[in-house]
Amino acid sequence: MNNILPVFWLVPIASIVALGMAWFFFSSMKKEDEGTPRMREIAMHVRKGAMAYLKQQYKVVTIVFIVLAIIFAIMAYGFQMQNPWVPFAFLTGGLFSGLAGFFGMKTATYASARTANAARKSLDSGLRVAFRSGAVMGLTVVGLGLLDIAIWYVVLNAAGVSSLVTITTTMLTFGMGASTQALFARVGGGIYTKAADVGADIVGKVEADIPEDDPRNPATIADNVGDNVGDVAGMGADLYESYCGSILSTAALGATAFAAFPEMQIKSVIAPMIIAAVGIFLSLFGIFLVRTKEGATMKELLRSLGIGTNVSAALIAVASFAILYLLQIDNWMGISFSVITGLLAGVIIGQATEYYTSHSYKPTQKISEASTTGPATVIIKGVGTGMISTMVPVVTISVAIMLSYLCANGFQLDVTAENLSKGLYGVGIAAVGMLSTLGITLATDAYGPIADNAGGNAEMSELGPEVRKRTDALDALGNTTAATGKGFAIGSAALTALALLASYIEEIKEAVSRLANAGDSHMAEVLSKIGDIPSFMDYFQVNLMNPKVIVGVFIGAMAAFLFSGITMGAVGRAAEDMVQEVRRQFREIKGILEGKATPDYGRCVEISTRSAQREMIFPSLLAIVIPIVVGLLLGVAGVLGLLVGGLAAGFTLAIFMSNSGGAWDNAKKMVEEGNFGGKGSECHKATIVGDTVGDPFKDTSGPSLNILIKLMSMVSIVMAGLTVAFI
Amino acid sequence: MNNILPVFWLVPIASIVALGMAWFFFSSMKKEDEGTPRMREIAMHVRKGAMAYLKQQYKVVTIVFIVLAIIFAIMAYGFQMQNPWVPFAFLTGGLFSGLAGFFGMKTATYASARTANAARKSLDSGLRVAFRSGAVMGLTVVGLGLLDIAIWYVVLNAAGVSSLVTITTTMLTFGMGASTQALFARVGGGIYTKAADVGADIVGKVEADIPEDDPRNPATIADNVGDNVGDVAGMGADLYESYCGSILSTAALGATAFAAFPEMQIKSVIAPMIIAAVGIFLSLFGIFLVRTKEGATMKELLRSLGIGTNVSAALIAVASFAILYLLQIDNWMGISFSVITGLLAGVIIGQATEYYTSHSYKPTQKISEASTTGPATVIIKGVGTGMISTMVPVVTISVAIMLSYLCANGFQLDVTAENLSKGLYGVGIAAVGMLSTLGITLATDAYGPIADNAGGNAEMSELGPEVRKRTDALDALGNTTAATGKGFAIGSAALTALALLASYIEEIKEAVSRLANAGDSHMAEVLSKIGDIPSFMDYFQVNLMNPKVIVGVFIGAMAAFLFSGITMGAVGRAAEDMVQEVRRQFREIKGILEGKATPDYGRCVEISTRSAQREMIFPSLLAIVIPIVVGLLLGVAGVLGLLVGGLAAGFTLAIFMSNSGGAWDNAKKMVEEGNFGGKGSECHKATIVGDTVGDPFKDTSGPSLNILIKLMSMVSIVMAGLTVAFI
Repeated sequence: MNNILPVFWLVPIASIVALGMAWFFFSSMKKEDEGTPRMREIAMHVRKGAMAYLKQQYKVVTIVFIVLAIIFAIMAYGFQMQNPWVPFAFLTGGLFSGLAGFFGMKTATYASARTANAARKSLDSGLRVAFRSGAVMGLTVVGLGLLDIAIWYVVLNAAGVSSLVTITTTMLTFGMGASTQALFARVGGGIYTKAADVGADIVGKVEADIPEDDPRNPATIADNVGDNVGDVAGMGADLYESYCGSILSTAALGATAFAAFPEMQIKSVIAPMIIAAVGIFLSLFGIFLVRTKEGATMKELLRSLGIGTNVSAALIAVASFAILYLLQIDNWMGISFSVITGLLAGVIIGQATEYYTSHSYKPTQKISEASTTGPATVIIKGVGTGMISTMVPVVTISVAIMLSYLCANGFQLDVTAENLSKGLYGVGIAAVGMLSTLGITLATDAYGPIADNAGGNAEMSELGPEVRKRTDALDALGNTTAATGKGFAIGSAALTALALLASYIEEIKEAVSRLANAGDSHMAEVLSKIGDIPSFMDYFQVNLMNPKVIVGVFIGAMAAFLFSGITMGAVGRAAEDMVQEVRRQFREIKGILEGKATPDYGRCVEISTRSAQREMIFPSLLAIVIPIVVGLLLGVAGVLGLLVGGLAAGFTLAIFMSNSGGAWDNAKKMVEEGNFGGKGSECHKATIVGDTVGDPFKDTSGPSLNILIKLMSMVSIVMAGLTVAFI
Repeated sequence: MNNILPVFWLVPIASIVALGMAWFFFSSMKKEDEGTPRMREIAMHVRKGAMAYLKQQYKVVTIVFIVLAIIFAIMAYGFQMQNPWVPFAFLTGGLFSGLAGFFGMKTATYASARTANAARKSLDSGLRVAFRSGAVMGLTVVGLGLLDIAIWYVVLNAAGVSSLVTITTTMLTFGMGASTQALFARVGGGIYTKAADVGADIVGKVEADIPEDDPRNPATIADNVGDNVGDVAGMGADLYESYCGSILSTAALGATAFAAFPEMQIKSVIAPMIIAAVGIFLSLFGIFLVRTKEGATMKELLRSLGIGTNVSAALIAVASFAILYLLQIDNWMGISFSVITGLLAGVIIGQATEYYTSHSYKPTQKISEASTTGPATVIIKGVGTGMISTMVPVVTISVAIMLSYLCANGFQLDVTAENLSKGLYGVGIAAVGMLSTLGITLATDAYGPIADNAGGNAEMSELGPEVRKRTDALDALGNTTAATGKGFAIGSAALTALALLASYIEEIKEAVSRLANAGDSHMAEVLSKIGDIPSFMDYFQVNLMNPKVIVGVFIGAMAAFLFSGITMGAVGRAAEDMVQEVRRQFREIKGILEGKATPDYGRCVEISTRSAQREMIFPSLLAIVIPIVVGLLLGVAGVLGLLVGGLAAGFTLAIFMSNSGGAWDNAKKMVEEGNFGGKGSECHKATIVGDTVGDPFKDTSGPSLNILIKLMSMVSIVMAGLTVAFI
């Protein structure tokens, strides 16, 4: 157990504090009044729909997990292609990620009516209920994440696994469980929510000319359920994975980088965990800072959320210096600057996202203006804007990669074994830095769909215009935080994936050494040639003129497009089913549009659920299968090409899709605020087309790409043993 | 002059035959009757507009060429960063490419009225005139291309440059001239044509409900001019560049691969030229095979074109074996199979493009069907389909890369110096194979806009419905050949770019050795360490874990998106100007819509010209500047990362955009043929939105990406000296 320094116990403590506070926020939210009977009834419908969906999804996912766990078990026990802990680590990763999604969604579905009801009192009350409920999600994710990490670290040490490299690479595989869970949550949830949203908009807003969330629209409950399963559960699982992935891969990189210095090695392994633990306390502090006053403008609302997140971020920056100094990590100063690089990159990407997607700025205003020449120019402008908007995030991430690498290795550009491992550790720790205050940043994200649902509830319950105005203000704020949250999610996914790339190399070495220890003389020879990263790259010929690498990069770029294409197609199909159903109800159930008959909400919920379940299987399997096939056909060189190509193209594509979608959404809002003819005008219809196209861009395909780029790395890591068997 | 084997003279002979036949087809076309006075008048308008545009474009391009030539001259004569021939080679490349565009467009604008007039006689006459005029373009491009190659090969040999490596790498730089010219042609032409097309469609088809090419539409002449400047001149310049680029880079690869065996070296350098020369004769043979009978169905028309191209392709496959055998090239059998790989890849990509974009198949039919739920689902489905359609071409190109590589090096997967150079020569020769019958494939491409314009002329001249039906059939055929042509252009661009990648390495070595010879001792030391590709990769640390490489890949992927985004935005802006102008004319010039007043066509032509000129500068400079900046900041490793990332992401993005656009176009055609309510229905309007969005996708951004990926390689090659100066 001598890998466990006393300071390590801060990690489980922080996780328990996070979970405790999550419980506290949850119960105090539950104590709030849920409002009128009508409000309760609607909330109940949404809750039931969401839970029914989640149950259905977990059923499918459980099957996938059992199959994969059996495969891993066979690989581990039958062929020594993997270490014996892998199947279990994999399962806990999936379980914890699922739990985080479940709790988050439960909270969100309880919170929406209460938020609407609190908004009847004042804007501040509404914000408080919604935001603290979002905080439940944030704290649950970080709490469960660190708990899983702490448990496995203790268990593996207690079980007598002595090598820190083995411990950390084993723990990485629980990230594979989290990734798999996240994939289904993002893809399934994304298809669900957008099928409902697109369907509701097309028939409701465009054809029948009734407002959003109008109770006469049969798809409106499904739409509200969708916000929960897509935006809450999906986003939570995604960031749970990035959070764990960044900490675990950084620990693994530390274990290798400092393998020759045992004391330093232990410290570098626990450093990312400690930073994350301290981040939890600072997130909590930030959460308590968020409050606002009645009649606050959008700017003031944003500012109040901003104070919370920015103060947390600033404090963790300072704290990192202290943590790394007190841990007496070599080059603590440089590594602290790596943390700051990650934090800053997150902020810049968030700001850039806001610039390109908020209608306070020119790009989105121009899209709105294009509506005067019809829907086609709205789409053309939106696509153009989204593509252009990739520049700042890509350059930011590129600079962050270079800087965090160089700060951590003493500004050595020469790619030697030592410089590389130290530098890559810096890249990993930058990702940890970016995610260290996830407790509060995720709270502002999860707040969005809660406010959105509160608005829906208020509309359907026909609360007064004053209340609607307040929930609208809360919702508008949610749209902005959702956009920046998306930028943040993809930025952290990119850095995490990069750190995972380096972990893949370690995992291959582990797999080779396992076989060598089992008496394979060829593997023993291989092992002697791949001691450090440069010789590894040399042995496997991972250079850019190797056709295997080039083909790998091609397949990686294609995988990102193919995956997005399939999820887009899925939303298209599901939305068409929904449109037909809503049209059918309008036609067959007399009196719906006059408000005299109740639409059959259940049927629409069912359609979304069924479509999502049916459509999520194929793209998800694809993400798992591609790296395996490439590994078998093109070996290590091909896999590394695949991961780099997939990462670069997937990251860029994800930003394009998210930002185009966000910009279309707000271009529509701008018209709705009375510009270019306002609600009901031809311009409004044109921007609704843009918004509808943007829905799967920003809420299905775009965010699913985050998972794709991480999951492909994770699959490669877990399947390293299989690739190695064919060397 | 002992590098010039007797068989080499086949190259200039073939080029002169091609140019002679082009002249023959041109003059026999000119002898055809141009039809009624009205037809002549319209043709004259289009011709004048096109020539005015081209003149304007050449003015801008001339300035750019002068500036670049001066920079190259300073680099060559002032700093010995380049060899003294470079500025001149660069200029001739630009000049010849410009000439090819000019002749092609001149022919096309003379041919359209004549095609319409011939269609008054019979379908066969119409096809013959249009296709033979297209052949003028095809033969001019290959003729001028081979002529330029032959001239420089003779001149450099005559001037006493003895090293074949120096000769071939010098010749490569004339590709830079062709690239630069092509860039402006594609981007400027693409913006021009789509501004006019989108503008004409939005106001004409959607708002005023008048048919395509209706003379009452003020933008209709500009639209027809656009087909010529975008699709004829742009496509011609693009393929001129691929054609020369593939031959030159393969020659350069041959010169390095067989540097140790002088006799073999000469043969491997001229082999791609000979294959291209024989390809010209076979293309001519194919061109004479194309004919059809009256009342031919679409299928029969396609078949008659297919016979021409397929027979040429099959014959060149057979001929390659003979050529390489007679040249007594080592491993002639394997290298011949590389040629076949390239040919097959071209065919498969073409077929896949047809499958995804023709409404004879399910994907496009589904997009058409989505119109029943409005424009938003049409767009969603189209984007999804385009993204999914990237799979087959990427896998095909990947397989082609691996196979052509392995066939040429005797199936050696181990990346040694010898295996690599031989294998890469195989990849180059595959590109040459794919492009060897360009004479006829480009004829089928250039045929498309001619038929399109013939249709426009017939509509505006109010010829009878029988004639319209015939021109419609010719036009529909043109749409299919345009789609497969686009697949072919991008496929060959990818292989060419890959071969250029390898040439970049040679160019860096040349630059280093130039400086070493001039007495730079550091460079002499570097030179001793980068003798072959593996040691080159090693010295410059071009492996996938070098952060410079990773950042390079990121920037490359981003560059593709940014470039597309800017060109999309340009079309959006230009189209809005056009819409405003057309609306103004409808409003202010009384009687236009009743056909009593003539619209001001000239004003619309002017708007397209001005917008295209204004908007093409920035993206074009970007393509030139990015590789230079990356070279200065990240060195050789960063540039190679940039090129691979840009190639993979750009290729995939280009296919996505071209195929989405093609599918939308045909989904609309399907509705126009009477499905889902037919012309004028809500479904029709929904598909028009799709088609309009698809216009810049398929005719501006998508094809411009071909140039981007080649030009970035070319710029890196020409600027190698600058990068090296900072090693």
